[in-house]
Amino acid sequence: MKPLGPIPPGFAAIDGELAIAGRKASDLAAEAGRTPLFVYDGGLVASRVAALRAAMPARLHLHYAVKANPFAPLLALMTGLVDGFDIASGGELALAQAAGLDPARISFAGPGKRDDELQAAIAAGVTLNLESAREADRALAIGERLGVTPRLAIRVNPDFGLQGSGMKMGGGAKQFGIDAVLVPALARRIVASGAEWRGFHIFAGSQALDAAAIVETQAQTLLLAARLAEDAGVALPRCNLGGGFGIPYFPGDRPLDPGPIGAALAERFETLPAVLQETRFCLELGRYLVGEAGVYLTRIVDRKESHGEVFLVTDGGLHHQLAASGNFGTVVRRNYPVAIASRFDAEPAEEASVVGCLCTPLDRLADKAHLPRAEEGDLVALFCAGAYGATASPMQFLGQGPAAEMLIAPER
Amino acid sequence: MKPLGPIPPGFAAIDGELAIAGRKASDLAAEAGRTPLFVYDGGLVASRVAALRAAMPARLHLHYAVKANPFAPLLALMTGLVDGFDIASGGELALAQAAGLDPARISFAGPGKRDDELQAAIAAGVTLNLESAREADRALAIGERLGVTPRLAIRVNPDFGLQGSGMKMGGGAKQFGIDAVLVPALARRIVASGAEWRGFHIFAGSQALDAAAIVETQAQTLLLAARLAEDAGVALPRCNLGGGFGIPYFPGDRPLDPGPIGAALAERFETLPAVLQETRFCLELGRYLVGEAGVYLTRIVDRKESHGEVFLVTDGGLHHQLAASGNFGTVVRRNYPVAIASRFDAEPAEEASVVGCLCTPLDRLADKAHLPRAEEGDLVALFCAGAYGATASPMQFLGQGPAAEMLIAPER
Repeated sequence: MKPLGPIPPGFAAIDGELAIAGRKASDLAAEAGRTPLFVYDGGLVASRVAALRAAMPARLHLHYAVKANPFAPLLALMTGLVDGFDIASGGELALAQAAGLDPARISFAGPGKRDDELQAAIAAGVTLNLESAREADRALAIGERLGVTPRLAIRVNPDFGLQGSGMKMGGGAKQFGIDAVLVPALARRIVASGAEWRGFHIFAGSQALDAAAIVETQAQTLLLAARLAEDAGVALPRCNLGGGFGIPYFPGDRPLDPGPIGAALAERFETLPAVLQETRFCLELGRYLVGEAGVYLTRIVDRKESHGEVFLVTDGGLHHQLAASGNFGTVVRRNYPVAIASRFDAEPAEEASVVGCLCTPLDRLADKAHLPRAEEGDLVALFCAGAYGATASPMQFLGQGPAAEMLIAPER
Repeated sequence: MKPLGPIPPGFAAIDGELAIAGRKASDLAAEAGRTPLFVYDGGLVASRVAALRAAMPARLHLHYAVKANPFAPLLALMTGLVDGFDIASGGELALAQAAGLDPARISFAGPGKRDDELQAAIAAGVTLNLESAREADRALAIGERLGVTPRLAIRVNPDFGLQGSGMKMGGGAKQFGIDAVLVPALARRIVASGAEWRGFHIFAGSQALDAAAIVETQAQTLLLAARLAEDAGVALPRCNLGGGFGIPYFPGDRPLDPGPIGAALAERFETLPAVLQETRFCLELGRYLVGEAGVYLTRIVDRKESHGEVFLVTDGGLHHQLAASGNFGTVVRRNYPVAIASRFDAEPAEEASVVGCLCTPLDRLADKAHLPRAEEGDLVALFCAGAYGATASPMQFLGQGPAAEMLIAPER
């Protein structure tokens, strides 16, 4: 028996079934007309943003990292909730524009921006977080050719990483950003070029559950931003403090408490050095805003036993849930939170593994879990599916194709 | 410095550039109109099939596992090269039908076949490799409803796995196939039902480079097939012996020699028990037929240094090459064969890491490799990209979208 990750708050049972935003899983699957299906609860997203705003200093802006989940209705919902958006490619720029996002609120980071991507972003008025001095040259040349003043910020490769984060984005040699030592000269060059100078983007890591580590990283980030701006002798209109706020996926994970982070940030905002006093600060969050609001529903196609073990074979799998299968950036496979959605209030009765329909042993959604007895036709819910699910998985693998997706709008 | 995997045979330099099927990489990229680009050398595929046929007994049929690479022109090429096809989903059935493949030559394995997939396959006359007794019931019911006699084989979960294989598909509790002990009764039931009985599918593992292990597994497979058919008291019209033939990806990997495998199989075919003497045997191979014939070409967008390390940032990445990035089914990341395509005959001159354009540290195509000095605009070649590349990667991740694909037809 292997434990399951913790089911996030906000989900209840109606008539014994899992309900998402007050609607039964079976009704949602019927409305979608097919499974597998991602359901995103817009109310949970709105509450998460509201709680975060309440915990953070009013001065802090919130940005949404589109890469976490670019589903168009979700982006449209986000326009009313956050202050800005971060994109990572020309493709995400097109998605953002199609969803009606204001380009002036968008910034674009990514280590391999092609000229056509730079051009589209500059023409639209998007802020570029520059990843190298050569990228700065290319952006300035393109701006000149277009007759458009580019909005340029520098992505700094900090000399520190976010401790305990799932993914370190700073500290040592990285493909991301510009080494701190090179930043002041480049900042001066950008200001001198006549471009619209937008400041710094400093991203030290992601998916941390330890508030103290985030507090420490934000303190280092503010010190670094001040030092680099002072060295450069330039003002700092904006500073993206990165993200790093994680969500619990695995057994034993505890939810991050944003309270101490907001309190520490408020305190630091009171005593900012002169060079940062006019700066617009933002957090860039993806997973933390939407991850726990999403549920992946997949139907059991076959219940089988092999050598005494029960396998619940579903119509979904790693082609939509690569990370949950343990095959994306993890060394040791652990179970995400999983439940039998159609028997959500039933007691666990047996050990079973939930597997996908792909012809590969990698396709496992829950390993040796303690679950209510389930049969063909039952729905399985995989939680924490709101971020890095649909688009972070090989949807065309074995000819499968994309899952359905549905956003339930928050009640007004 | 970390070593690179071995570049497969069949690639040369023309004017200092990598040539694929006698055509320069830069010309291929220009013809495609964009990078990243998968190029598949049809001539190498045809030679591989021819060499394999020469090594194997004439009686053995060769099947292509569509999942390895379902690119339509490649499937069309394969129709003239192999004797049958194996598919893993209704989606692959649609791809196979679109490519004009004869459904009578297709078999369909996969643990989570939905009713609509069973129906499409039965209606088309595809052989179903049944994964459970309940799936047999569903297939028989659908056949009756359609008024079509279903073609049914049993996928056996063998009591052994392929030793040293990259992925074990047998031995112990599995979601694949039917435990051997249950097979005879089900075989009798299928024959009695009036369905067209097609025999066994026994797949013990994949990606093995040890010929002796494959010889041993095939011997066990033949013994198991004979024992189960005798126990069932039924003839065995067909027997799919599985695949398992691997290709070298990593430093130190040696190519598999099919010679001893063919010789051992020929010997066993001479002394088959009565119940197998009329059986049509086949091998089901995917990666071995097409993997080394494919090259992924991606262009360097930025050359940057960070803390003294060189990063070649490309317009490709793990969204097309998940396995090469070390994030799919591997615990320890090792380098695939990678080269600077536009300087293919240049001597290595520096240590550099080739990374993708995605904003994640997971996106690394070559780690600390010894490469010729390369600049922006240079093309990077990642070899062994013919199988499990384009469709086995999260192509929509970070808004990127699919790569271009191109098959160079073999010369007649």
